[in-house]
Amino acid sequence: MSWLKILGAVIVGALLLTVGILLGHFAIPKGGNGPRAPSWVQTVGRDLNESLLQSFMDQVDSGKIRENLKALASQPHMATTKGDEELVKLLLRRWQDPQVGLDSASEDVYGAFLSFPDPQRPNSVAVGVCGSQIFSTRRSEKNVTADQTHADVVQPYAAYAPPGNPRGRLVYANQGKRSDYLELVNMGINLNGTIAITRYGVAGRADKAVNGAEFGVAGVVVYTDPADINDGRASEEETYPNSWYLPPSGVERGSYSRYFGDLLTPYYPAKGNMPGQGRALTHDGIPPIPTQPIGFEDAQTLIWWQQGSVSLLAPPDRYVLYGNHRDSWVHGAIDPSSGTAVMLEITRVLGKMLKEGKWRPRRSIIFGSWGAEEFGLIGSTEYTEEFYSKLRERSVAYINVDISVFGERPSVLSSVSVYDNWRNHFNRISPSYGVIPNLGSLGAGSDYASFIHYLGITSKDIAYTYDRNKTSARIYPAYHTAFDTFDYADRFIDPGFTSHQAVARTVGNVLLRLADSLILPLNVSDYGEKLDELYSAAAQGDFLANLNANNLSLDPLKAAIGRFKSVAADFNQRITKLKEESPSPLQIRMVNDQIMLLERAFLNTQAFPNQYYYSHVIWASKSSDQATFPGLADAYTSALETGDWDQVQKHLTIVVHAVESAASTLEAVA
Amino acid sequence: MSWLKILGAVIVGALLLTVGILLGHFAIPKGGNGPRAPSWVQTVGRDLNESLLQSFMDQVDSGKIRENLKALASQPHMATTKGDEELVKLLLRRWQDPQVGLDSASEDVYGAFLSFPDPQRPNSVAVGVCGSQIFSTRRSEKNVTADQTHADVVQPYAAYAPPGNPRGRLVYANQGKRSDYLELVNMGINLNGTIAITRYGVAGRADKAVNGAEFGVAGVVVYTDPADINDGRASEEETYPNSWYLPPSGVERGSYSRYFGDLLTPYYPAKGNMPGQGRALTHDGIPPIPTQPIGFEDAQTLIWWQQGSVSLLAPPDRYVLYGNHRDSWVHGAIDPSSGTAVMLEITRVLGKMLKEGKWRPRRSIIFGSWGAEEFGLIGSTEYTEEFYSKLRERSVAYINVDISVFGERPSVLSSVSVYDNWRNHFNRISPSYGVIPNLGSLGAGSDYASFIHYLGITSKDIAYTYDRNKTSARIYPAYHTAFDTFDYADRFIDPGFTSHQAVARTVGNVLLRLADSLILPLNVSDYGEKLDELYSAAAQGDFLANLNANNLSLDPLKAAIGRFKSVAADFNQRITKLKEESPSPLQIRMVNDQIMLLERAFLNTQAFPNQYYYSHVIWASKSSDQATFPGLADAYTSALETGDWDQVQKHLTIVVHAVESAASTLEAVA
Repeated sequence: MSWLKILGAVIVGALLLTVGILLGHFAIPKGGNGPRAPSWVQTVGRDLNESLLQSFMDQVDSGKIRENLKALASQPHMATTKGDEELVKLLLRRWQDPQVGLDSASEDVYGAFLSFPDPQRPNSVAVGVCGSQIFSTRRSEKNVTADQTHADVVQPYAAYAPPGNPRGRLVYANQGKRSDYLELVNMGINLNGTIAITRYGVAGRADKAVNGAEFGVAGVVVYTDPADINDGRASEEETYPNSWYLPPSGVERGSYSRYFGDLLTPYYPAKGNMPGQGRALTHDGIPPIPTQPIGFEDAQTLIWWQQGSVSLLAPPDRYVLYGNHRDSWVHGAIDPSSGTAVMLEITRVLGKMLKEGKWRPRRSIIFGSWGAEEFGLIGSTEYTEEFYSKLRERSVAYINVDISVFGERPSVLSSVSVYDNWRNHFNRISPSYGVIPNLGSLGAGSDYASFIHYLGITSKDIAYTYDRNKTSARIYPAYHTAFDTFDYADRFIDPGFTSHQAVARTVGNVLLRLADSLILPLNVSDYGEKLDELYSAAAQGDFLANLNANNLSLDPLKAAIGRFKSVAADFNQRITKLKEESPSPLQIRMVNDQIMLLERAFLNTQAFPNQYYYSHVIWASKSSDQATFPGLADAYTSALETGDWDQVQKHLTIVVHAVESAASTLEAVA
Repeated sequence: MSWLKILGAVIVGALLLTVGILLGHFAIPKGGNGPRAPSWVQTVGRDLNESLLQSFMDQVDSGKIRENLKALASQPHMATTKGDEELVKLLLRRWQDPQVGLDSASEDVYGAFLSFPDPQRPNSVAVGVCGSQIFSTRRSEKNVTADQTHADVVQPYAAYAPPGNPRGRLVYANQGKRSDYLELVNMGINLNGTIAITRYGVAGRADKAVNGAEFGVAGVVVYTDPADINDGRASEEETYPNSWYLPPSGVERGSYSRYFGDLLTPYYPAKGNMPGQGRALTHDGIPPIPTQPIGFEDAQTLIWWQQGSVSLLAPPDRYVLYGNHRDSWVHGAIDPSSGTAVMLEITRVLGKMLKEGKWRPRRSIIFGSWGAEEFGLIGSTEYTEEFYSKLRERSVAYINVDISVFGERPSVLSSVSVYDNWRNHFNRISPSYGVIPNLGSLGAGSDYASFIHYLGITSKDIAYTYDRNKTSARIYPAYHTAFDTFDYADRFIDPGFTSHQAVARTVGNVLLRLADSLILPLNVSDYGEKLDELYSAAAQGDFLANLNANNLSLDPLKAAIGRFKSVAADFNQRITKLKEESPSPLQIRMVNDQIMLLERAFLNTQAFPNQYYYSHVIWASKSSDQATFPGLADAYTSALETGDWDQVQKHLTIVVHAVESAASTLEAVA
C-alpha cells in the first residue's frame, strides 16, 4: 500500500506596475510655410521615413541585448518579489534616461490576487508503506550553476491550487484529460480518493485537476516527461549545464488557473477604487483539489512505485502598443527576459533617435512591461480593464514579444533572410500571394489575450522558435524551472545573441511601420482568406450534411463573406487612388479608422456568455476539432450529441452578423 | 354567474423600410487657394454658419406641416398595411425630389415578427348568465368623423397576446400590478381561472397579463379609464369630435410585449441572411394568457356586471441621426404623424438649401422613418442591429421626434420663447447655470431606445406637451385609438400648427448645430451634474447606512466622480484654448471624437445580463424607487430582501469603472 502527502498554501500579494510613454506627433513645424498654409499642413501628411527605418535597423545591437538579458535574469524576479521591484527600477532608469529615454515613464500598482506557497511549510509528494514514509520528492531543484541556490528561488508549486494533505493510492492518468480519467474508469479502476500522477501537455494545467476531481480524485501530481521536453534525454550528462535539455530535478512551475486576469476582479482593474477587492475567491477555473508539480527524476521514482508588475511607455490619440511581461517563475532568462531584453534594445535605439531630435512617431507608441503574467496574464489584463474604453477607442495594434528566442542554437548559422527562413519552415498557400509565411492563431498563452479577445485590437505575437523536425520538445526544456538562466540562454539558446538581434529588427520594423505609415500597413483583404478558410471547413462533408439535415443553410454565410471580400477589394482600390490624390488629413484619418475598427467589428459580447473575456467571433477559443468558426464549431459538435441545433443556428447568425458588420465598416463612407 | 369570451389570432407580417441619405461634406473647393495650401484647407475648418441657420428657421412653414399631416394621416397606416406602403412611396417621392430632395433615398425591408388579429374571427369580451350571452363589447369604434369606418381600421386587439377563448368570473384588478393581484388574494379572493379587468397605466401592457397569470388568472381585459385620460369626462357631448377627450367607444391598441425589437431575432437584423429567422416564438416578455383592450363605455358595463418601415437620409464618416416612426395603430395623426410632418418640413427646407447649392452639412445627416414602432420599436432596433458596428463607430447623436405635439391647444397663445416656456414649466436648479429647462430620462418609449441603451449614442427626444396642472390626462385622450385623426389634430391639438412649427424650428436648430458646428455642441461637464445627482441619492440616509453596515463604501465612487468633473473642466478649457489657436483638422477631430465617444464609455455589456439591450450604466431601466444609478438601485433594493450585498458591490464596481472610463476618454490625449 502506498500513500501520498501534498502540502500547499495560498497567500495574497500586491502587484506592481510601471508605465512609460512615447508620444505620437501632431504638428512639429519644420521651416517656413507659405502665407496661406497653416503650420500643420506639411507635417501631418508625412509618411514613414524609409531611411530612418534603415537607421533604426542598423543601430540594433546584439551585444546590448545580451547585456540586457544578463541584468534582467541576474536574480529570480517572480511577481511582487524584490527582484521584480528592482527590474521596475531598472526599466524606469532606462526609460527616463536623458540620452536614450522616452517621453515619460511611470509606475502603476494593482492589488491583484496572486497565489504563493508557504515557505514555512514546503510542498512535497511522499510515498509511504504501512504508515512509514519511505520516499519524498525534492523541495527544490538541484544546484547546477549556483543560480538555483538563490534565496528567492520559489519552491516548485501549483499556483492557485488549494492547500491540503490528501492521502491515497497513486494512479497514472497520462495527461489528465477527461478522456484519460474516463479510460481508467472504463478499465474498472475506482478513482475515488486516489492521487493521480499526470504529465504536462495537451490538457491545461488546471484542467488536469478539474477533470480528476470530477472522478473523485483527491490530489494531482504533474511532472515533465523527458519524451515531451528532452527528446527522451534524461541523464545529468545529457542535460543542462551540458546541453539545453532539462535536468532531472527541474520542475515546471505555472499558473493553475483556466482563466486569465485577476480572479477577484474580472473585467475591472484591481485598484483601490474598484469596490470588488478583498472579497472571497469563489471560482470554477482553478483546481478544486491539491496539486503539485514535480521533476521527472522524482516522477520516475513515484511511477516506479507506481504574483507581479507592469511597465509601459504611452499618445496623440492613436496608439501602437508593444508589450511583454517582466515577471518570471525563477530567473526567467528565456521566459520572459529574452523578450524584455529585445524590448529594451528597441527602446534604447528609438529613445536615442528621439533625444537626438531625429524622429518622433506619427502615432503614439506605448511600451508595456507587464507584471504577473505567469499567474494568468494579470498585469496586461488589468491594464486593458482599467483603460478599456480608451484602448478600444484608439488602439491601432498590439505587438507582443514574450519569449523572443526559444530555439536551440542552430548547428549551422545561415545567411537566409528572416522572411525566407520563416516561409521555408512555416508557410501556407495564399490564393493571392502564393506560398507565404504562415501565422498561427492567438490563444491565451501570453499578454496579447485580453487585447485581441476582449478589446478586439489587432494583435501579433512573435518569437524565434526551433525546427520541430529536429526536436520533439514540447517547449524549450528549462521552461518554468530554476534552470532557465542567463547561462542557459548564453550557452545553448543563442550564443552571440544574433537570433535576439533578428527578432529585435523584425519587431522594430513592424512597430515603426505601424507607428509611422501614413496609411496603416494592414491589408484588410487578408481577412477574406481567413474567412474563406473557416467557411470551407464547414461547407463540406458531414458538417454540411448535418447542417442541411437540420434545415440550416450556409448560403447566408457564403454571401456575407463574398460581400466582405468585394468590399475589402474596393477599399484597397480606394486607398491606392487616395494615395495618388494628395489626400487631406481627414481623408487619411477616415481610412485609417476603418482599418483600425475592422477588428472591433468582429466582436460580439453575446457570442460566448460563459467564457470570460472572449468575444472575437474569429479568434475565440474552441474545444471542438472542427476547423471552422469557433462558436459554430463548438455548437456543431455539441449538437451532434444533444440535438441542440438552435445553438448552431445562433452561432451561424452571430458569424453572419459579424462578417456583415466588418463589411459595413470597410464600405465607402460617402 | 358571469362568463367571458376572448378571441385573438396572431399572424406574421413582413416589415418594410426606406432609407435616404444626406451626405456630409469633405472638401468643396471654394475660390482660388494659394499655391502652398491644399484645396481642403479652407473648407474643412469652417464652423456653423449662423445666417444660414437663421435662413432655415425662417423657412420652416406651419402651413406645409399641416399639409404633411393631412396627407400622412389620411388613411390608416399600421405597419405592413397598404397605407404604410403608400407612405413609404410618399417619403421617397419627397426625398428624391429634384428641387427639395436629399442626396439619396432608398427602401430597406426587414422580415420581422408582427402580430395581427384575424379579421375573420374578431375579438370581443362577452358576458353571459346561465349559459346565455347577455352582453358583448364593440368590435370597432363608433363612427364619429367617417375616419373610423375606413376598411383598414384594425380592430382593437392586444398585439402579441395569444389567441384563446377563456371563460371565468370577472374580477376588477385595478392597474394589474403584481401588488394589485396580491391585494385581491390577501382579501381572500381566489383568482384561479378568473378574467381580470384592469385599467391602463402604471404597470406596462404586457405586465398586466404576466402578473395575472402568476396568480392563475385565465384572461385579461384592459380599458382606458376616463379619470386617467379625460379629466373624468365620459359623455359623447364632452368628447371628440366636441373636444380633445376620448369618446366612450375609443380603444387604445398597443404592443403587449415587455421588450423591444423583433422578438425572433434580438440583436440581429431580421433579414434573409440572418439564419435566426423563421424559428418558433418562445418568449417570456409577452402575455401568456389571452388579453383584450376595450373602451370605457364597454368597461363600465362590464364592471357594472362586475405596427413597418424605415426611411433614412447618410456620411462622410460622422453621422447625426434624426428619426421618427411612420407606422400607427390607425390613422395616427398625433402618434406618429405629427412627428413625421415636422420631419418632412425640415427635410424640405434642408433639401431646398442643398439643391440651391447654398449649403451642405459638415457631418452627414441620416433621417430615419422607422417602421413597426408600435409593435416594439422594431424598425429602429433592426436598423441599429444591422449597422451595429458602423453606427457605434461613427454616430455623434440621435434625435427622435415621435409625437411632436400632444398638448391640447392652449387657451391663450403666448409670445414667450420656447426656451422660457420650457424653463417655466419643467426646470431644475443647475449648480453651474441656475434655473434651466429640465430633461427627463429616456426609457424605452420610442425609437431612441436601442440608440441610447444598446449602442451608447447620445440621444434626445422632444415634444410639445401639455400643462399637467391643467389636465390629469395620462396621455392625449385619443392615443392609439381610431379617433387619432387629422381632424382631431387640426381642431383640438394644434389649430394653426404653430406648435408644430415651434417644434420643427427647435429640433432643426439642434440638428444643424450638431451637424455643422466645428466642435460638437455637447457640454461634457453637464454629465458631472447628473453623476452628482445620482451619487447624492445613494450617499445619504438609510441607503448609506445600509451600505456601510455591509462594509461597502461610496468613497471610490465619490473620487471617480470628482476625477470626471475635474477632467471634464480641463477638457472644456482645452477646447476654449484650441478655438483661439486656429486648430488643425486633426486636432478638431481628436476633440470631437472624445466628445462623441464619451457616451460609449458608460456602456457595460456585463452590467445587465438579463435585460435585453440595456448596457448604459447611467440610463438603464430600473424597478427600484431609489434615485441612484439603476443597477446599484436595483441591487440595493434586492439586497434588503435577500441579503445579497455582493451584487451591490458588483454594481458599485461597474459604476466606478464606467465613470473612470468616461474620465479617461476625456483626458488630455498628449
